[in-house]
This record gives sequence, structure tokens and C-alpha cells, in this order.
Amino acid sequence: MPDLYDVAAIGNAIVDVIAPADDAFLAANSLDKGAMMLVDQAQSQALYAKMAAGVETSGGSAGNTIAGVASYGGKAAYLGKVADDPLGKVFAHDMRAVGAHFDTVPLVGGKATAVSMINVTPDGQRTMCTFLGASVEFTDADVDKDVIEGAKIVYLEGYLFDAEPARRAFAKAAALAHGSGRMIALTLSDGFVVERHRAGLMGFIEGQVDLLFANDSEIRALFQTDDFDTAVEALRPHVKLAAVTRGAAGSVVLSQGERLSVKAEAVQKVVDTTGAGDQYAAGFMFGLSRGRPLQQCGQLGSLAAAEVISHYGPRPLVSLKDLAAAKGY
Amino acid sequence: MPDLYDVAAIGNAIVDVIAPADDAFLAANSLDKGAMMLVDQAQSQALYAKMAAGVETSGGSAGNTIAGVASYGGKAAYLGKVADDPLGKVFAHDMRAVGAHFDTVPLVGGKATAVSMINVTPDGQRTMCTFLGASVEFTDADVDKDVIEGAKIVYLEGYLFDAEPARRAFAKAAALAHGSGRMIALTLSDGFVVERHRAGLMGFIEGQVDLLFANDSEIRALFQTDDFDTAVEALRPHVKLAAVTRGAAGSVVLSQGERLSVKAEAVQKVVDTTGAGDQYAAGFMFGLSRGRPLQQCGQLGSLAAAEVISHYGPRPLVSLKDLAAAKGY
Repeated sequence: MPDLYDVAAIGNAIVDVIAPADDAFLAANSLDKGAMMLVDQAQSQALYAKMAAGVETSGGSAGNTIAGVASYGGKAAYLGKVADDPLGKVFAHDMRAVGAHFDTVPLVGGKATAVSMINVTPDGQRTMCTFLGASVEFTDADVDKDVIEGAKIVYLEGYLFDAEPARRAFAKAAALAHGSGRMIALTLSDGFVVERHRAGLMGFIEGQVDLLFANDSEIRALFQTDDFDTAVEALRPHVKLAAVTRGAAGSVVLSQGERLSVKAEAVQKVVDTTGAGDQYAAGFMFGLSRGRPLQQCGQLGSLAAAEVISHYGPRPLVSLKDLAAAKGY
Repeated sequence: MPDLYDVAAIGNAIVDVIAPADDAFLAANSLDKGAMMLVDQAQSQALYAKMAAGVETSGGSAGNTIAGVASYGGKAAYLGKVADDPLGKVFAHDMRAVGAHFDTVPLVGGKATAVSMINVTPDGQRTMCTFLGASVEFTDADVDKDVIEGAKIVYLEGYLFDAEPARRAFAKAAALAHGSGRMIALTLSDGFVVERHRAGLMGFIEGQVDLLFANDSEIRALFQTDDFDTAVEALRPHVKLAAVTRGAAGSVVLSQGERLSVKAEAVQKVVDTTGAGDQYAAGFMFGLSRGRPLQQCGQLGSLAAAEVISHYGPRPLVSLKDLAAAKGY
């Protein structure tokens, strides 16, 4: 199979509703700052009614990553389930408008397109409540063989471990990718996802994953430790390649026993951390797919993360390709 | 009737889709920079397919003005028609979230909520293509007597002159307002609206309007002249009170033969002019409803306009009340 894409991703296709909030609002609504909480439709409506006026924008962790890969000039494809409704059309439009391939058949006559309500506090932290809607109806029937076999890296979003049909889709994608000599990447997505599926994720990592993305709290949740370095050392024997992010402290790349440190890119003001991890993964995978050294892959990740946290919204507002050129990467 | 609101407005209830574009895109799609063009559903879909990835946010000229009045700490109400669909729910949420009264019954089983596709060029100019959808189903039955009679100023959006039922709603609102000793304000909205309805607008201005808002190109269209001062002088005998804006050159206030000049507020970088006129009207009417001198009403208008053009999106992102306090207004 020829190289059709640098990166193809499978994720929950979600539209974000982003609004400002204060810590008192998080406390009053029992929201855990920085985390992602799943809500049902009734909870979703009740929370929305209390939120401030907001802005709607296409999101979803892997969708944001694909937008980042495309912004770097990479060839990208996305697989994910929206509904045949106005927000689903917005999601599809935005994915295609960045130049990514997106052709998953929308859900007709079922649940609405997934929505994530993102409350952003003055410290720039984002706290998410997600109604998964149509996105969990993604099944192995939606795994497009040509896309998976034609992508240098197939990127899977840990959030999908919450849905049994999506886990089967993961298994199918991994089998197709490895059958074609492709690389499987996984992001752990969220500390609570790790808590819910520790054993399943660990088995998948050891059996199928060639490249793991995680942040500080996610690997600490995976190994049930409060200490970052303990978690990194615990992870080392389980992975071929991994990149672990820790906000302003940069990231750590583990490769075949080697451990690299990558600095975070300086940011004037952190406005909204939504999408930081997603964009790090975008930069790292773009670099890897183009054969860049691992240190530079990490730097491309840091650069994309810095761009996205300096403004509202989870996707780049400027060309990451231009930013990288200006840096000489 | 007691004073329930400082300002109540009737307008086309619209959700904006905002995306970056260049001049070549405007030319290739025959779009007139800075203007508002009406499109049908098929044209709307065809244009959307060509636009860049965007952001969705509640808009609509008078809706933006009401959000501005509320941001100044004013009591505000809005009347306008959305559909019973996801974008309609977004519009209603955002209106109520800023503290405005909004209770117009949504349209069920008809057209979708109105959408305006706004292409923003690097010079900050916005060019709009609007699919009016459900918004034109606003009729005189939707004119809430209690809201109109309880508002110090009733603000009407010239865009509604495109729909016959909405013009009847204007007549009803004007009759109710004047019957209760209330003030009727009108914005001309757009040069092409003026071209389409010059005689009708002039009759309405002379017969019903106590306060007129217009910009440079709109009053020049009204009096068919290329010269701003000629147009201002032509307008003078027809209005009791008027505020005419001209971008960076500030605004002119006409009152009973008197002519005041108001400076524009300095802006570091014009990012997106969407909502500039709407926010000027918000500041001016907030000041007027609170008994401020006309010069200060104009300054409050300039301040709100400067805030909104310094970022993407048609509504204030910070508290205009706080901005005004910092200025000593």
C-alpha cells in the first residue's frame, strides 16, 4: 500500500462549546478542574443552562491532532462518528477545510453529534463535560481499510476505551496497520480514562502500541504513583517509544531505553489549555512521519502546544508550518 | 408601565460562522467586501463548502447590540425568531447567559436557524453572506407588548425591512412604544438594505424614529451622494436624534440642529470589524437610557466598538462596564 497519509486518527468526533468560568462555578457544579467528565443528555442540558455565553468550535482530541498535522503541512485523515445534524456538518466542514480526509458515514436518526462543554478558568485551565452522543456509535465497520493501511502512523484516542464497539474498532485498526507494517500510536487521553480501563489499556499498550502519548497525571494514574519519575521508569519497559508531557516543564521522550528531555516552548500568557496535548501529539507525529530526529519531534510538539494554549480554542489559528519554518525546525 | 428594560431590540436572530479568507476568495465568489449579501440555502451550502475552518458564535446585529447593553450593566430584552434546532438553542442560551430577557417562541418544523457566513480578511474587514432561515418568520404576533412598553428604548434592525411580516411587526412595535411614551431607535444596517428600501425606510424614519443609527455608506446610500458631509446635512432635517459612524474617523451626533463630533477609541490592531456598529449602538443607547450627555453616549459607543474590533467575534469578550469604569465614563 502506498503512503497516502502521514497520520490517520480514530477519535470521538466532538463539537466544543467553550465559555469562561470561575473556580466557584466549578465547585458549585462538582467539576474536577482540568479533567474530562462524561455526562448524559439531561446533565449536559442542565450544565449548559448555567454556563456563560460561549463559542462553538470543532474539537475532539484526535480531531484536533489531525488539524495540527494538517497545519504542519502533513497529509492527514480522520475517522469518527458525527450525526447527520447541523453540528455534525460543522465538524465535517472544519475537518475537510483544513485539508484532511474525512469520510465516515454520519449517524442518521440516532443520537445528536457529541458536544463537550469546556469551562475555561482565568488561569487558562480547561475543565470538560462531554456528552458523547453519536460519537460512540463508531464501530469496526467504520474502520476504513484503505485509510488505515495507507497511513504511516495510525493514531488512536484513549477516550474510545469507554465504548465497547470502539475497542473492537481499535483491535481491527491495529491488526490492519500492523499487517501493512504501519505504526500504531495511542494517547491515554485522561487520568479518569486510565482509572476506568487500567488493565485493558496496559494490555493494549504491550500488545499493539508502537508509540504512546501521555501526560503527567495519566502515567501516574497508570502506575498508581504520585511521583512523575517513578511513573516514567515504570513505563520504560512497556513501550518501544513514548512521549510524556508535563505542561510548562516540557516533555520526556523514551525510546528503546534512551530518555530525552524536551523543553516547553515559552508562552506569553496561557489563555486556554484546551488542545495542548493534542497539538503536542500532532507535532511529534508530523516530525516522526517525516523522519526527523526524536528531539526535534518533541520540539515540534512543544511548538504546536504553545500556539494552541495562547488563544481560545483547541486547534491552531495560524500555520504551524510557518511557525516551524521561522524556528528553523 | 414601569421601566423593565433600558433597551429592547427586535432583530434577525442569527448564528455566525466566522472564518479567515483572503481578497482572492472574495473575488472568486463575487463577494462585495464589507457588505451583507442574502443567500438562499443552496448558495449558503455551496459557499460554506469553500470556506476555511471556522468558529460558530451567536450574532445578529440587534442581538449583538443587546449583548453589549447587558455587558455595560444595562437591562436588556431581545425579540427574534430562531428555529427549534441546535443552533437555535445556542442562540437562546447565549442571549440568556448575558442576562438578557429572550422569550420569542422558536419556529417548529420550518426553516433552520439563520446563519451568517462571515469571511474576515487580513485587513480586519468582514464580508457577510446570510441565510435568513427561521429569522424571517418573526411576525407581529411575536411582538411582546409587555417587553416593548417596558423598555426605555425600543431598537429596530433595518435588516428586517427585507421581510414584509417583520415590517408589520415594526409598525406594531412603534405604535405600542409611542403609545407608552417610549423611544424608537432604528439602525439602517447595511447600504444594500438602504438601496432596496430607500422610500420605505425614509417614511419610517420621518414618521416613527426618535433615534437613528447609520454608518457612512448607509447615509450616503440613503441620500445617493458620495460625500459624507452632504449626506449628514441632508439627514439633519429628517431626524430628532441621530448618530452616524465612520470607522476610525469617529462619529457624528445630530440632535435638534446641533452637530457633535465624537472620536473613535484607539485600537492596537483591527482583527475583525464584525459588530462594530452594533456595539457603538449598544454604548450609545446604554448612555442615553441612563441620562448621560450625548457626547458621553458617543464615547460609550466608541469604547464598545473598539473592544469588539480588537478580536474575532461580534460580541464583547470582556465587561464593558469595567472598561467604562476604567475610563471614568
